[in-house]
Amino acid sequence: MTASDTQRDEFHMQAALRLAARGLGRVAPNPAVGCVIVQNGNVIGRGWTQDGGRPHAETMALEMAGPRAEGATVYVTLEPCAHHGKTPPCVEALVAAGVARVVVALRDPDERVNGAGIEILQKSGIEVVEGLLANEASELNAGFITTRLHGRPLVTLKMATSLDGRIATATGDSKWITGVAARRYGHMLRAQNDAIMIGVGTALVDNPDLTCRIDGLEQYSPIRIVADSRLRLPLTSNLVAKAREVPLWIVTVLGNDKDRLQALEDLGAQVIEVPANESGLPDMGLGLEALAKRGITRILVEGGSHLLATLIKDELADRLMWFRAGRIIGGDGIPALESIGLERISEAPELHLIEERRLGDDLLESYFLRN
Amino acid sequence: MTASDTQRDEFHMQAALRLAARGLGRVAPNPAVGCVIVQNGNVIGRGWTQDGGRPHAETMALEMAGPRAEGATVYVTLEPCAHHGKTPPCVEALVAAGVARVVVALRDPDERVNGAGIEILQKSGIEVVEGLLANEASELNAGFITTRLHGRPLVTLKMATSLDGRIATATGDSKWITGVAARRYGHMLRAQNDAIMIGVGTALVDNPDLTCRIDGLEQYSPIRIVADSRLRLPLTSNLVAKAREVPLWIVTVLGNDKDRLQALEDLGAQVIEVPANESGLPDMGLGLEALAKRGITRILVEGGSHLLATLIKDELADRLMWFRAGRIIGGDGIPALESIGLERISEAPELHLIEERRLGDDLLESYFLRN
Repeated sequence: MTASDTQRDEFHMQAALRLAARGLGRVAPNPAVGCVIVQNGNVIGRGWTQDGGRPHAETMALEMAGPRAEGATVYVTLEPCAHHGKTPPCVEALVAAGVARVVVALRDPDERVNGAGIEILQKSGIEVVEGLLANEASELNAGFITTRLHGRPLVTLKMATSLDGRIATATGDSKWITGVAARRYGHMLRAQNDAIMIGVGTALVDNPDLTCRIDGLEQYSPIRIVADSRLRLPLTSNLVAKAREVPLWIVTVLGNDKDRLQALEDLGAQVIEVPANESGLPDMGLGLEALAKRGITRILVEGGSHLLATLIKDELADRLMWFRAGRIIGGDGIPALESIGLERISEAPELHLIEERRLGDDLLESYFLRN
Repeated sequence: MTASDTQRDEFHMQAALRLAARGLGRVAPNPAVGCVIVQNGNVIGRGWTQDGGRPHAETMALEMAGPRAEGATVYVTLEPCAHHGKTPPCVEALVAAGVARVVVALRDPDERVNGAGIEILQKSGIEVVEGLLANEASELNAGFITTRLHGRPLVTLKMATSLDGRIATATGDSKWITGVAARRYGHMLRAQNDAIMIGVGTALVDNPDLTCRIDGLEQYSPIRIVADSRLRLPLTSNLVAKAREVPLWIVTVLGNDKDRLQALEDLGAQVIEVPANESGLPDMGLGLEALAKRGITRILVEGGSHLLATLIKDELADRLMWFRAGRIIGGDGIPALESIGLERISEAPELHLIEERRLGDDLLESYFLRN
C-alpha cells in the first residue's frame, strides 16, 4: 500500500460514510450502513440501508454494479452480515459477485456477526482490510452499537438556552431564545433519531407536537415518547391528537389507573410500564431498556429540566447538544437543568467537546458525556 | 493609490496597532497609541505610548528615526495630539521632523484634539490619510473613547462558569471550574485593564488578592476596586493587606461610619463615596463616573452575581468575556448572574459575538453588549 492507495481508500470510505448517514433515524433497529463499489478507479455502485432497514447497503450497491462487480473493491462502513435473517446474508452476495477486495470500517458488534462476515470473505479468497475510518463509522453507528453493547439506545440530550443556561424568563416566556437556523437544525436532529422524548411537565407547559417540521422530512418524524409517571398527559393534548399519524409512546410506572391507561391507548398511544425508582418516577435505565427492545437505537431528549438532570445523574446520557443564544436571561429565569446532586466540582460529569457550529446568531456545541 | 499601496499602508498600520496594544492597562488616562515610521519601504521608527502615558508613541518613533524621518510616512493609530499638555504636542514634532505623509487610523475624540491635529499637519503641507483600520483602532481604544464620550470607563464583565451558567456547587465548591489556560488568560486580562472590580460579597467568600499573577506582569496588577455599600470588607482581608503595594479603592455610599472608613484608609485603601440607588447600594452610574474622573478608562468586573446583574440591568456593561468549562453543575449550583428583572425574552439585552477562542478544554466567548 502506498500513501496514495490509502488516500484513495479513505476517499471512497468517506463517501460510503456519507451515504450511510442518510439512513440515520430511518432504519432502526438496523445499523445505517453505506457501501461504495469501485472498479479501475470508477465508482460502479453506491448503496445505503434503505428506510426500515431493507435492502441492505451492499445489496443496493451490488445491484447497481451488476456483472462489473467482478474483481472490484467494495467499501462498506460496517462488516457485512453473515447470518440468515429476513434476507440472505450480504457476504454470500459479495462472494457470488466475485469481488476481489472488501474494505470494512468497523466490525459488527452484533454477536451474530462480530468477525464471522469477515472470516467468510477471507475464506473465499477475498482480500479484507479492516478498521479504515473506524472512529467515524463508530460515531455514525453509535446508536446501533450502544443498543447492542448496553441494551439501551444512544441518548442525546438537546438543550436550547441563553448564555446563562436559562430556557425561559421568570414569567415563563420562552419564545424564542434561539433563532430560526438553530430551530431548523433542531428539527433535522429529530429526523436523525428514532425517537424523541420529553417529560410530561414540558408536555403540559408547551403542548408540543414533537414532529419534524422541515419540508420533505415530515414523514421522518420520530416516535414521540413522554415520560409520565402519573399519566397526566391530557387526552386533548397535541401529542395525543396526532397519535394515529405519528406514534406516541408513554413511559410510566406500574400500577396506574387502568381506565386512564386504556383511554390513552384507545386514542392511539402505547403505554410502556416500568418499575418506579425511589422517587416514584419511571426508572429510566429500565425505561430505556424497554425502548431498545422495541427497536429504538437513537433517542433525542429535549427536556424538561428534571428529565435531563435525571439522565445525567443516572449516567444514561451519551451526547449533549447545546444550542446557545447570545442572550442573557438572568438568575430568576428557568434553568435548563435541575439539580444533579453535585457537591464538589471535581465530581462533575466529564464532557468532551466534539464540535462547535455557528447557526445564525447562535452557537451549537456538541459534547460526549463519559459515563 | 494602487491596491498594493493600500495593502502596504494596512500592513504598517497593523504593526502600529500591535505596538499600541502593548500599552493597554498601563497608560490610563491616556490612550494606548502605536506609531510606525517608514522611509523607502524600510521601517525606521517604532513607538508606543509608554507606561504612565509618556513619552507618546510618535515621540518614541521619531527619536528612533532621527533625521531619516524627513520625507517619511508616519502610521499612527490615533490622531496626533495638538494641545500643549505635559509635553509639546506631537503634531509640532512631526512637522519639525519634516515627514511627508501621516496615515491616521482614528480621529481623537478628545475635544482638545478632534481634527485639530490633522488640520495643523495639513496646513504644514503634510499629506494626511484618515480612517485606515479605524474600526480596529476604535476597538483598541474603546476605553479611552468611552471615557471621553460617556464620562465612564469601558466596562468588561468577566465570567467563568459551567455550561449551565454556574460558578459553584450548592455547597460553594468553585475550585476549579475552568482550567489552567483559561485562568492564565484571565490574569492577562487583568493586566490589560486599568482596574478590576468585584462586589464585597465575592470578597467575603473568596478573600481574593485580585492581582495579576503572571510572571513578569506582576507590576501591571490593576487598581483593585470593591463595591461595598456598608464597608463590610474586613480590615484583615487579603485585599486590605496589600493595599500599600497594589492600590485598593472602595466604592461605597454616603453616610457610612466614619471610624470604619478611617480605619480602611489608614491601612492604605481609598474610599470613594457616591449616592445610593433605590436599593441602598452605590449608584453604579455615578460610581463609574467617579472612577473615570480618577483616570480609569478600562475596568474588568469579575463578580459577584449581584454586581454583574446590576451593571447589565443599568446598561453600564460594554463587553462580556465568558469563559466556559465543559462541565455541568446542575440547577442547585450558584448562578453567575442574579435576576436582571427580565419578563420577556424579547426584552433581553442584545449581545453580539466578537470572538470565540479555545483555551485548553475551555471556551472563551467575547461579546459586545448593545446599550
